[in-house]
Amino acid sequence: MIRAIAVIGTGLIGTSVALAARRRGVTVFLSDRDPVAARTAAALGAGRTRPPAVPVDLAVLAVPPSTVGAVLAEQQTRGLAHCYTDVASVKSLPERVALRLAPDPASYVGGHPLAGRERSGPLAARADLFEGRPWALTPSPLTSDTALRRARELAVLCGAVPVVTQSASHDEAVALTSHVPHLVASLMAARLSGGPAGATRFAGQGLRDVTRIAAGDPGLWGDILQSNAAAVAGVVRELHEDLSRLVTALDGLTGGDGGARAHGRRALVDLLDRGLSGLTEIRGGRGGTPQGGARVLVAVTDRPGELPRLLAAAGGAGADAEGATVEDAGGSGLTVRFPVAPHVLDRLVAHLVAEGWNARGVDAAYTDQYEKGMIRPTVRT
Amino acid sequence: MIRAIAVIGTGLIGTSVALAARRRGVTVFLSDRDPVAARTAAALGAGRTRPPAVPVDLAVLAVPPSTVGAVLAEQQTRGLAHCYTDVASVKSLPERVALRLAPDPASYVGGHPLAGRERSGPLAARADLFEGRPWALTPSPLTSDTALRRARELAVLCGAVPVVTQSASHDEAVALTSHVPHLVASLMAARLSGGPAGATRFAGQGLRDVTRIAAGDPGLWGDILQSNAAAVAGVVRELHEDLSRLVTALDGLTGGDGGARAHGRRALVDLLDRGLSGLTEIRGGRGGTPQGGARVLVAVTDRPGELPRLLAAAGGAGADAEGATVEDAGGSGLTVRFPVAPHVLDRLVAHLVAEGWNARGVDAAYTDQYEKGMIRPTVRT
Repeated sequence: MIRAIAVIGTGLIGTSVALAARRRGVTVFLSDRDPVAARTAAALGAGRTRPPAVPVDLAVLAVPPSTVGAVLAEQQTRGLAHCYTDVASVKSLPERVALRLAPDPASYVGGHPLAGRERSGPLAARADLFEGRPWALTPSPLTSDTALRRARELAVLCGAVPVVTQSASHDEAVALTSHVPHLVASLMAARLSGGPAGATRFAGQGLRDVTRIAAGDPGLWGDILQSNAAAVAGVVRELHEDLSRLVTALDGLTGGDGGARAHGRRALVDLLDRGLSGLTEIRGGRGGTPQGGARVLVAVTDRPGELPRLLAAAGGAGADAEGATVEDAGGSGLTVRFPVAPHVLDRLVAHLVAEGWNARGVDAAYTDQYEKGMIRPTVRT
Repeated sequence: MIRAIAVIGTGLIGTSVALAARRRGVTVFLSDRDPVAARTAAALGAGRTRPPAVPVDLAVLAVPPSTVGAVLAEQQTRGLAHCYTDVASVKSLPERVALRLAPDPASYVGGHPLAGRERSGPLAARADLFEGRPWALTPSPLTSDTALRRARELAVLCGAVPVVTQSASHDEAVALTSHVPHLVASLMAARLSGGPAGATRFAGQGLRDVTRIAAGDPGLWGDILQSNAAAVAGVVRELHEDLSRLVTALDGLTGGDGGARAHGRRALVDLLDRGLSGLTEIRGGRGGTPQGGARVLVAVTDRPGELPRLLAAAGGAGADAEGATVEDAGGSGLTVRFPVAPHVLDRLVAHLVAEGWNARGVDAAYTDQYEKGMIRPTVRT
């Protein structure tokens, strides 16, 4: 069981790890190149700034990816801890350097909690930063069972979900899901400086969301991207090819040639469609709404007031009211269809029926065709 | 004063306009190519589905940009309204078509409420969708004063802020702030489908934010982008040049040549810096924190507990506690510096002093140097 850890680097992540560990009763020793940062973390209750008298169970190196290897070698030479891990967003480079330079590569396992904020520094730290987030652990061929077990214990103690994987797989994955998105946000944000005067008065939430993560610290992000340059370059090259095709498509649309226009239009919609499909990888379904799954059908008349009341009732009972669709049910009748998760189907139907609505649940197993003839509720007039 | 309007197209925007107008007592006539969509909007309380017996004050064409011109010509021929406006995200194309095809171009003024959601259709509509948002109005050389006045009245009635501009300026601005960001989100999201297996288990909020708007309807967005292809192509071409430079930079970083690596590193950090600068165009300052402005300085000791209490007190009084910085004040003392808006400076200082903190306000006019010698509070031990 972990009783004492050392945190080297009291920025956002290091201080958050320290706060989480303190909350679970672990003794924490803090240090940072910048003594004020370490004192600030200590003043926040993240631990103490004096060095440990005896080696701690685990040292957490919360330093930029390019310096993990050197700091590891230095601290192992000093004998700071029995085991070592880090929290850098890149895992292959630190592993390579550890295997080459560290006095004891067996006591080191790479780690990366998948959590962050645009803000940096100890004041932005939160004890619950890692709650429910994945925490990658990337043992090298030499990593000992003890080192892996302690790093896993730290992740769990911080409320995170440990995910053991290889450093190369990790780096490819985060190139796609974190490093290239950061570059994309920066590329878009960089365009805003040179734009026409007053253009940004029309800026809305969409632009703010697309560019939000570009606010990250350029020094740290430069280090991250450089340390994972090969994997990042792979994804950026694909993006560049897509963007080249987009330039051609847009040129076709502005030119006079009918064939080029038709081709441009197809290429444009194809890109938008692929974007929509890509989103299903990180959401529950197309645009967040489950398709072809369980649904609840409710018959209403189109008298003003009835539909808003139904939406409020269904929304209040946990249904995605805005994800509903409406179909004609003949006469003044409308059938409202709420897509629902299978486990809430019966509860939602019971709730709506109890409130006097003409509602029926349809299991995902039933096709729309079957539903049309057999299961739809009829409008009571 | 507007007493009756007609809304053609009861999707998200049309139905939201109708709901906002109804809330202000305006009579609304609804129609849509899809009769169920119009009945759904009516059932939500957005108006009635029968056509008006006499021409209404203003018709709102809430149809895709490429069809505004044709629908305008058709409705003017029928005599639906005295004045006409639209809500499409592109303004030059509808204006061009209106001037060429419409029987009465003087009664038409282009309009574009800068508000939206990823969700579409009448069920996603909200009466307060336009609250506080800009609403562009783009009179053509032929637009009458009456048409402009009525469209402006509609915008105000919906709670929006009318912004009169030229159609070409509008289209350049939204290419940068809305249309290209949408493409960027789609380009990034499109990459997620082809990624390595399991990569997206590491997806976080950053990726979700960057790609969120890619969930928009591809048909409608294809139409918007095609209708504004020239302006969009201009920005996309600049993005393509930046991305080409990025590919070169990343290749330099992965290659063996020291000069190419140094150059790659510089190009990378330059892009990140430019992204950060671009953000100031849509935020209050660098990363959202005012720089070199007014600040409140508070002296604390680094005893654990004191700093968290100060942050809570300052945060509770409206200061940006996480935007604070900490400096050494000698001995066990720390000086915490909260950047604040000038109008809250005195109130925050008074509040903190009343709670027993050693706090001083520093006006933006004072340089840091002056502050260091003269104004800093001293730690009471």
